Amino acid sequence: MTTTDPVANLQTLIRCPSVTPAEGGALAALEAMLAPLGFAVERMVAREDGTPDVENLYARLGSDGPHLMFAGHTDVVPPGDETAWTHPPFSAVIDGTELFGRGAVDMKGGIACFVAAVARVIEKQGAPKGSLSFLITGDEEGPSINGTEKLLKWAEERGERWDACLVGEPTNPDALGDMIKIGRRGSLSGYITVEGVQGHVAYPHLADNPLRGLLQLTHALLDPPFDHGTDHFPPSNLEVTSIDTGNKAVNVIPARASAAFNIRFSDVWNEASLKAEIMRRLDGAAATGPLRSGRAPVNYTITWPERVGQVFLTRNDALISSLSAAINAVTGKQPVLSTTGGTSDARFIKNYCPVVEFGLVGQTMHKIDERVAVADLEKLTEIYQSFIESWFEHAGD
Amino acid sequence: MTTTDPVANLQTLIRCPSVTPAEGGALAALEAMLAPLGFAVERMVAREDGTPDVENLYARLGSDGPHLMFAGHTDVVPPGDETAWTHPPFSAVIDGTELFGRGAVDMKGGIACFVAAVARVIEKQGAPKGSLSFLITGDEEGPSINGTEKLLKWAEERGERWDACLVGEPTNPDALGDMIKIGRRGSLSGYITVEGVQGHVAYPHLADNPLRGLLQLTHALLDPPFDHGTDHFPPSNLEVTSIDTGNKAVNVIPARASAAFNIRFSDVWNEASLKAEIMRRLDGAAATGPLRSGRAPVNYTITWPERVGQVFLTRNDALISSLSAAINAVTGKQPVLSTTGGTSDARFIKNYCPVVEFGLVGQTMHKIDERVAVADLEKLTEIYQSFIESWFEHAGD
Ligand SMILES: [Zn+2]
Ligand SMILES: [Zn+2]
Repeated sequence: MTTTDPVANLQTLIRCPSVTPAEGGALAALEAMLAPLGFAVERMVAREDGTPDVENLYARLGSDGPHLMFAGHTDVVPPGDETAWTHPPFSAVIDGTELFGRGAVDMKGGIACFVAAVARVIEKQGAPKGSLSFLITGDEEGPSINGTEKLLKWAEERGERWDACLVGEPTNPDALGDMIKIGRRGSLSGYITVEGVQGHVAYPHLADNPLRGLLQLTHALLDPPFDHGTDHFPPSNLEVTSIDTGNKAVNVIPARASAAFNIRFSDVWNEASLKAEIMRRLDGAAATGPLRSGRAPVNYTITWPERVGQVFLTRNDALISSLSAAINAVTGKQPVLSTTGGTSDARFIKNYCPVVEFGLVGQTMHKIDERVAVADLEKLTEIYQSFIESWFEHAGD
Repeated sequence: MTTTDPVANLQTLIRCPSVTPAEGGALAALEAMLAPLGFAVERMVAREDGTPDVENLYARLGSDGPHLMFAGHTDVVPPGDETAWTHPPFSAVIDGTELFGRGAVDMKGGIACFVAAVARVIEKQGAPKGSLSFLITGDEEGPSINGTEKLLKWAEERGERWDACLVGEPTNPDALGDMIKIGRRGSLSGYITVEGVQGHVAYPHLADNPLRGLLQLTHALLDPPFDHGTDHFPPSNLEVTSIDTGNKAVNVIPARASAAFNIRFSDVWNEASLKAEIMRRLDGAAATGPLRSGRAPVNYTITWPERVGQVFLTRNDALISSLSAAINAVTGKQPVLSTTGGTSDARFIKNYCPVVEFGLVGQTMHKIDERVAVADLEKLTEIYQSFIESWFEHAGD
C-alpha cells in the first residue's frame, strides 16, 4: 500500500492547487487514498448565498464505537509572488532534507501523515476495533462559512457521533513535539460608533467632537487588563484594530467617528460575561464624558458580529495523555499543553466531542517557501500511528 | 448721491451672485459706487498655479496721510439648497423688517454700510483730510490664497501705506454693538502618522499596534490644557479632527494610523514656542510607548502645513477708542473687546497696520435665509460715519 508513505501522500496533495475555496483536485486525491483502505467516502458541497460553494469530504472506516475523528482542511492560502519561491509552490520539490510547497505544513502535511498512519495501522493489525473518520473541509482558510461547521451538522444529521477528535493543524512553534493545543481562546469583535455634533474648530462649544468620546471609550477598553491569565490560558488581550473618521477638513470637528476592536479572551470569560464587562467599561467611560471636554455623556452605539469564537478547554485526560505519550515515545519531548494562538476549526468540533490539535511545525505556514522537514513527516506519522493504537486500546476504559 | 443709502447699496451687491471665487459683478458694482465719490479704483487679478484666478479691488480717495483702510470681501459662500430659502438668495427681498440674501451680513452688508458712511461724510464735509481706501477681495470664503494677502503685497509694492484698518466682518453675536474683535487667536494644524508592525490579533507580541501609539500621542495633546487664557484671549483649544486607519479586517493589527489636529492658540504662544510644546508632549508620550503595550517608543512622524494663522492683538488705543465711542454713541452699548472666533483676513492686515473688526450681527451667516435687520444697516452706517469722522479728527494726535 503506497499510502503508508507520508512523503508521497503529501506530494500528491501539494500538486493539487487547492487555493481556498478551490477544490483543486485535493479532495479527489484524498478520496483515492482512503477508498482503497476501506473508507466509505462522501463528498458534501456546502452553499450559502453570497459565498462560493465549497466542497468538503467525510470518510468513515468501521461502523461501531468507539469513534475517533481526524479533522482538517485541504484548502491553502494563496502562494503570493510565485517567482519569489525557491521551488514552485505546487511542485512539491524535495530539496535536500526539505519538501517545499504551499500547504506543506498547513495542513496537507498533517493529512498526509494521518493517512499514512492509518494505512500502517491497517497493514499491521487490520482496521481498528471501532470507527475512524476523516472530516476534511475546503473552507478553513477562507470565511469558514461553508466548511467544518456545516460539515459537522450535516454528518450529525446523518447519525454520526464521535468520541474524540484530533485536528492536524501545525501546532509546534519550533520543533516537532513542542506543543499540543488543548483549547483555544475565545474571539469577540465589536464595532463602536460615536455620534457627535459637527462644527468649526474655532467654536468647539457649539460642537461635540466624537473623537474625544471615542478616545475615552477606547482607553477604557485597553486599560486595565481584562485578566491576568489562568492555568491554561494566557491573559486576555484586546486590540483596537481600526479608528476611522474620514474628515478631510482639519478645521472642522467631525460629526462621527468609529472604532473596531477584537479581544482574544481566556476562560475567565464567556461570551455573555465578556460582553457585559465591555459594556460596563464603555458605559462608565461614556458617563465620564468625552476626553477633556467637560460635557455630557458620550453618545455611542456598539454592534457585535453574529459569529463569536467561543473559548474552550478540553478536559479529556485519556485523549490528551494518549497523544502526549505518543509524542514522547517518538520525539522524547514532553509537549506543552497550550491554548495560545488564533482560532481553528476546533472551535466548532468542541461542540460535538473532546478535541485536541497536533501537527507539524508552523514556522513557514502562510509564507513564501512554506516547507517541511522530510524527517518530520516520518516522525509525525509514527506519532499518529502510536496515538491511534493507544487511543483505541484505552477508549473503552 | 444714492450711495448714502446702505439698503440700496446692499441690494445691488446681493443681486450679484458672487459665489466664491466668482466675481459675479459685485466688484464692478462696488467700483460703480466708489468712482463717483472720487475714488481711484483699481482691479487686480491674483493668480497661482492650481487655484482659480481671483479678482480683487483696491480703491483710494486722497493722496496724503493719515490713511484709513476699510477691508472686506464680496465673495460669498454657496447658498446651499435654494429652494429652502424663504426668498431667493440673490434677490435681496425686504420682508417686513429684514433684508434677505446670501452675503447680507457676511459681508456685503458691511461694505454697503461703509460705502454709505463715506458718501455721507463727503456729502456733509467733503473728502476727509487724509486718505481713505477700500481693500476688497473675492477670495476670503475660498482658500484665501489669491485674496487679501496678495492684494496687500501688491498695494505695498506700489507704495501704499496705511495707518489703521477696519475690517467689516460680522462681529456681533446677538445685537449690533456687542463686540469688536481686536485680535485673533492663532491657528496651527498638524498631521501625525504612527508606523507600527502589521500582524494578527492572535499574536500581538509579533505585531506593534500603531493605534496604541496614536492613542498615547493624542492623549498627550488633549491633556493637560495648553493654558488657561490671558487678559484678551480665551484658553487655547486643541481638537483632534480626524483619526484614520482604513483597516477592514477586524482580526488584523494595522501597519499604520494617522491623526490630524488643529489648535486655536492664545498669545501665550507664538508659532515656534507652540510647535516646541507640541513636540515636547509628543516626544514624551512616544517615549512612554504605545498605550498598555510594554513596548519601545512610538515610531511617529509629524508634518506641519505651510500656512499658519499667527496670533495677534491690536494695541492701538486711538483706533479702538474711536470705534468704541462711535458704537456707544449710536447703540448705547459698550462693546466687548474680543479675540474669540475663527481666523479672518485681519491676520494678514496686522502685518501692515493696526487692525480692528466690526460689522453686523453674524447669526445667520453661511446659513439658509441669511438676512439682516434693515434698521441695523442704518445704525451701522451711522457708526461707521462717526468712526471715520472721529478717526481722522484724532489720527494726527
Ligand atoms: Zn490550517
Ligand atoms: Zn466674511
